[in-house]
Amino acid sequence: MRNPLSDKIVSIPPSGIRKFFDIVNEMKDAISLGVGEPDFDTPWHVREEGIYSLEKGRTFYTSNAGLRELKVEICKYLERRMDVVYSPDHEVMVTVGGSEAIDIALRAMLNPGDEVLIPQPSYVSYVPCTVLADGVPVIIELEEKDQFKLTKEKLLEKITPKTKILILPFPNNPTGAIMEKHELEEIAQIVEEHDLFVISDEIYSELTYKQQHATIAALPGMKERTVLINGFSKAYAMTGWRLGYACAPEMILKQMLKIHQYAIMCAPTTSQYAAISAMRSGDPDVEMMRESYNQRRRYLMHAFKEMGLECFEPYGAFYTFPSIKRFGMTSDEFATRLLREEKVAVVPGTAFGDCGEGYLRISYAYSLESLKKALERIGRFVKKLDAEG
Amino acid sequence: MRNPLSDKIVSIPPSGIRKFFDIVNEMKDAISLGVGEPDFDTPWHVREEGIYSLEKGRTFYTSNAGLRELKVEICKYLERRMDVVYSPDHEVMVTVGGSEAIDIALRAMLNPGDEVLIPQPSYVSYVPCTVLADGVPVIIELEEKDQFKLTKEKLLEKITPKTKILILPFPNNPTGAIMEKHELEEIAQIVEEHDLFVISDEIYSELTYKQQHATIAALPGMKERTVLINGFSKAYAMTGWRLGYACAPEMILKQMLKIHQYAIMCAPTTSQYAAISAMRSGDPDVEMMRESYNQRRRYLMHAFKEMGLECFEPYGAFYTFPSIKRFGMTSDEFATRLLREEKVAVVPGTAFGDCGEGYLRISYAYSLESLKKALERIGRFVKKLDAEG
Repeated sequence: MRNPLSDKIVSIPPSGIRKFFDIVNEMKDAISLGVGEPDFDTPWHVREEGIYSLEKGRTFYTSNAGLRELKVEICKYLERRMDVVYSPDHEVMVTVGGSEAIDIALRAMLNPGDEVLIPQPSYVSYVPCTVLADGVPVIIELEEKDQFKLTKEKLLEKITPKTKILILPFPNNPTGAIMEKHELEEIAQIVEEHDLFVISDEIYSELTYKQQHATIAALPGMKERTVLINGFSKAYAMTGWRLGYACAPEMILKQMLKIHQYAIMCAPTTSQYAAISAMRSGDPDVEMMRESYNQRRRYLMHAFKEMGLECFEPYGAFYTFPSIKRFGMTSDEFATRLLREEKVAVVPGTAFGDCGEGYLRISYAYSLESLKKALERIGRFVKKLDAEG
Repeated sequence: MRNPLSDKIVSIPPSGIRKFFDIVNEMKDAISLGVGEPDFDTPWHVREEGIYSLEKGRTFYTSNAGLRELKVEICKYLERRMDVVYSPDHEVMVTVGGSEAIDIALRAMLNPGDEVLIPQPSYVSYVPCTVLADGVPVIIELEEKDQFKLTKEKLLEKITPKTKILILPFPNNPTGAIMEKHELEEIAQIVEEHDLFVISDEIYSELTYKQQHATIAALPGMKERTVLINGFSKAYAMTGWRLGYACAPEMILKQMLKIHQYAIMCAPTTSQYAAISAMRSGDPDVEMMRESYNQRRRYLMHAFKEMGLECFEPYGAFYTFPSIKRFGMTSDEFATRLLREEKVAVVPGTAFGDCGEGYLRISYAYSLESLKKALERIGRFVKKLDAEG
């Protein structure tokens, strides 16, 4: 029998995040600080709306782009929170999480050989989705000295005549870095000068701890060049609902919608009804969760300092990205020993790009109680390493 | 500003199904016999399970391949109903409807230039998803004289050294054609002789009215060459839940899972919990709906005969595919006039491939009451055309 597989897909490695969790699941008393999802249940009023829609028998397809009512709420939200105005009928579509939006944006925009600039460390999907869409991923290695922000210089360095898209992954998973408005303005200028497009993955936009999130789409001249991706998973603790959205100039959105129509049909109906409630009255829930994350973030930063684990201060998402360079081990070695010896699971920075070497992603989407227990163990482990070294 | 779009996606037309529904939605008193989804609400016990999972706060990601409990039930179901044995841990994944499964199967298997045999008339996604995955769609035109089945001769005619995949879309949307076991055996032999793979889209497998559905995956030597696609939308009236599944040899499934992991993450969690209940105790619901569809199917066939509209007898899905060739109009002209003059929406056969010219897809996923009203209008229209001609 001949080989059934596409060469392209075989060349793509599976995500490095999951490996540790398979071990964790089989280990008694292990604590995971590894997963990238909120520890909160979805707010009750949102679940209630989902329940109500099921009781009412709203179990049919919605239109391909999503319920109009939801698209209207999304536009109101974006205007209210981010000062950017989209048309619900022509510039918004509801997707299966932010993930689908990333995939179809790349599929709708790339011709073979087009280069996609991907700042790393960053979410694991950008490179494989680019490769699957016949694009060429060009990595921009972000550095701690820049607080893992994308700088003008780093961007310029990697632009070639083949560059078409810049992926902008802020607030960032795994580093927790954010980009402020004046920093985005510098990037926007280069994007315009070099006639690039931006896919801005803003799934963590509600989780910032310094100031409100700024979107590049709101900057002058940028809306027409930007696919803005956001969703409900992180802000409203709705990961399992699989609901996100993309906003883009009609010309691009129309093509993304075509792929969505053929490959997905529509986002889950129950989730769409529930999300309307999230948009309309979810602000206090988001505020409560944000405060809680912030408290944990401070606790972690304090604990890292106490145990002598260097970590730049992250102002977004729910991740810290401490450096373990001084221990003379790879991230993978550190994470493996930490799991074996102290039963705490964290993700090696290298899961998010080679330049994540020397770092760990430690999530604080866990209760303070779990965090305290885990940090005690990490502290003990660091002490042991220091004694060894 | 340069062109933001991929040439490939621009070359793909949007689906021809939706056009008529945009008109219908704005037309008072119009009756649609056009949509391809059950008119039943999802059975209550299934919705109840979804509600229960929301009450319990099961709002998190599941593992990428889906809840193990659901995968186990899917395997039990396939063994019980179709005599084919899959391993829940290595050969099954839960997808966002059958649509996602089709898309990722093609993406996982095609190299540029590989030919995909697509029997038409058939579901609108196969061609665009093939093109998006860099494959070359090769159409096999099915004919009414064969009851729109795929014959050995028609298959052999289109096989070239570049042929890699055969899509097997039975029970068929839009024709309602089915393939019986002995007919599949002939196809399987050719598939094996020419070292092909099969993507068997069996989303309508529970809706047959002659005998139980047979899957090609159950034939000797075929499991290792087949990606079996099925789901909950049609059998359990669960379209809005967006839940399907794919079964395949581990080697293929692993690669499909990689795409799913990066582009989708997991299927909606609430839907997965609900689907467990569908698999465990949904048989009587399916039986009830099947009987109801069958009653409507007979009613339609009888009414067509009375008004002199030729139609081969369909034994699957919930569509009839009457011929309008004798009226000397295109399908599009007929459907447009029928909508304008009698306010009944049906889908021109050409929406499912050029060889659908001369036919209409008329769905019977509507109440007998609606069907009666619509058929009266169609009868009046046919009489008018006969008088004109």
